[in-house]
Amino acid sequence: MKLTCNRDNLIEGINIVQRAVASKSTNPVLEGIYIDVTEEMVLSGNDTELGITCEVPAIIEEIGSLVVSSKTFGDIVRKLPDTFVSLETDDTGKMIIIKSGSSKSMLRLIPAESFPKVNPIDSTNSIEVKSSTLIDMIKQTSFAAAIGDARPNLKGVYLEKIPGMLNMVAVDGYRLAFKYIEHQGNESIGALIPPRTLNELSRIISRSDETINILCNDTSIMFCNERVKIISKLIRENFIDYKNTIPKDFNTKAAVSTAELLSAVERASLIILDDKRSSLIFNIDEEGIFISSTSDFGQTAEKVNAQVSGSPLTIAFTPKNMIDCLRAVEAENIIFSFTIDRGPAIIRNDGVEDDFTCLIMPVKVNNR
Amino acid sequence: MKLTCNRDNLIEGINIVQRAVASKSTNPVLEGIYIDVTEEMVLSGNDTELGITCEVPAIIEEIGSLVVSSKTFGDIVRKLPDTFVSLETDDTGKMIIIKSGSSKSMLRLIPAESFPKVNPIDSTNSIEVKSSTLIDMIKQTSFAAAIGDARPNLKGVYLEKIPGMLNMVAVDGYRLAFKYIEHQGNESIGALIPPRTLNELSRIISRSDETINILCNDTSIMFCNERVKIISKLIRENFIDYKNTIPKDFNTKAAVSTAELLSAVERASLIILDDKRSSLIFNIDEEGIFISSTSDFGQTAEKVNAQVSGSPLTIAFTPKNMIDCLRAVEAENIIFSFTIDRGPAIIRNDGVEDDFTCLIMPVKVNNR
Repeated sequence: MKLTCNRDNLIEGINIVQRAVASKSTNPVLEGIYIDVTEEMVLSGNDTELGITCEVPAIIEEIGSLVVSSKTFGDIVRKLPDTFVSLETDDTGKMIIIKSGSSKSMLRLIPAESFPKVNPIDSTNSIEVKSSTLIDMIKQTSFAAAIGDARPNLKGVYLEKIPGMLNMVAVDGYRLAFKYIEHQGNESIGALIPPRTLNELSRIISRSDETINILCNDTSIMFCNERVKIISKLIRENFIDYKNTIPKDFNTKAAVSTAELLSAVERASLIILDDKRSSLIFNIDEEGIFISSTSDFGQTAEKVNAQVSGSPLTIAFTPKNMIDCLRAVEAENIIFSFTIDRGPAIIRNDGVEDDFTCLIMPVKVNNR
Repeated sequence: MKLTCNRDNLIEGINIVQRAVASKSTNPVLEGIYIDVTEEMVLSGNDTELGITCEVPAIIEEIGSLVVSSKTFGDIVRKLPDTFVSLETDDTGKMIIIKSGSSKSMLRLIPAESFPKVNPIDSTNSIEVKSSTLIDMIKQTSFAAAIGDARPNLKGVYLEKIPGMLNMVAVDGYRLAFKYIEHQGNESIGALIPPRTLNELSRIISRSDETINILCNDTSIMFCNERVKIISKLIRENFIDYKNTIPKDFNTKAAVSTAELLSAVERASLIILDDKRSSLIFNIDEEGIFISSTSDFGQTAEKVNAQVSGSPLTIAFTPKNMIDCLRAVEAENIIFSFTIDRGPAIIRNDGVEDDFTCLIMPVKVNNR
């Protein structure tokens, strides 16, 4: 293998594929970056759950492939003195020689045979989404997926293509976040994706008009643009029938500024975050939403202006659930709709497209 | 106690005194901020090694003093909705009421009797230094103080006022960093200061023309400006006779760009940072400084241009020592002077004021 490339392109490629490289593994090859040079140079990282490949432009003199330690190779390349980098294997085939300006480094290779190649998905089941739209969908839903000891089918984010629509939804039993976009085409996809895959995807793609292709088969999903392919195992469980969990009839509705409500909720949460017995109490009546909290540290009370219709209501929430949901809202104003004090409440955008729904379950009102 | 103040002033004061508040202590009062309101409002934090007070402008209606949980009080004040904040104790004297805009919080007080008041030093032994100068002196020396199991007198930074000069010096047995400024006056000070005190001081004062007063007695040192007082216990040990450790005669001298040498050293260090048996090898001759390193991961080699005079030399250093010393240099170019391959080497500024000296001990050349 022998080639010359631009240092900054190489650094960018390394940064991207390192997101899939295992930081500690009993199998050292998973801590490596696979460099495959044929007509192009392609870098890969793969921890066997998530695989990422990235093309890096290069002037190629000799083809070949090898695996280097991701950390050491990345650290060295980031510090190279010159804009141009040459990479070649030495005569023994056991080292890569990295030259740039007056600096020359030789790095021991990792035997490449056992590297789990990242296999792109070849499927006709393909849809296209604008990268900024995809980032928004992820931001507004992935926070609601379950973590820890939850049921496996709650630990993913469900991507669902149905005729005319693309939905993303996550639910952990205490809250549900749902976002849709209009999407032409009659493809049918239902994929339960690990949140980590979507979070890495968000970090790699830019908030732009660029098109991301999504391809899917029974076991894996691939997100790709012209240079980068992100391929992830799916969670092979059936997602819950989420549509029936969202109520349609409400007894109380409050129209309120997202920022004002979030900021009051954050203040009221401060003294109860460390106290699992305490909750945020919402007293809702025609005057607005009165938020209070009490713990061993003290108490808070604050009125948030809101346009309230329907019956007055006292209802309680856990601080983290409420803060996560309100932070996911993109609209300036929301409609917060309530059923009963022990039933689900719903947050929706007010005055803009009704493409986001967040359901949040209350907890028992505990007036300490 | 009852007062009104500006939220941002209060936040600034909290941020400053929190640097001296214990984050976890068996004595809860040390996790508190002491608020003392007489003619002014003064906040204090004190973990008994380091104490900091800060005046916050306030309109005072009623004097008083109390202790609140530093973390909870700080978190609440940072989130307050309005520019104005009112603080008052409630009727029971057991709570502080924090009001701002429509928000009202009540926070339980910590019994204040056992709070260790921060006592300013009243001494005629006082000197003045510009804050930006003080920050530079700290940056260029404190890194060299010993940590861990070292002898207690190496674990401090020595501040020494002698007629005409103010010196700062730290040494850990492997390296020594010395910085002086010209300073009129015949005061005599010799204070061994914990590095943490100086690092917190650097963060609190701004890089400006502001004057910092330094007052000292046998057990403590105080750094203060108009609003803030930082009072620290001294390390009550005799500092070493450092002046005799700095050699005056050299066999080899190299004039070199600080940035070029640092950058080559950083590259050569990458593959040996995790390998304690490996060191940076400097081969110095009339062609320049040839830096190389070898470890189980690979090897590096690079020539750095330098104007060399004297005998050729092969000498080895540990990467961290060399990187720390070179990062402390402020001058664009240095003179790197060497005695013998097992003797101390010296880094000094080239072409600007000769106010900084860094001594670095080599290690055994190990040509693996």
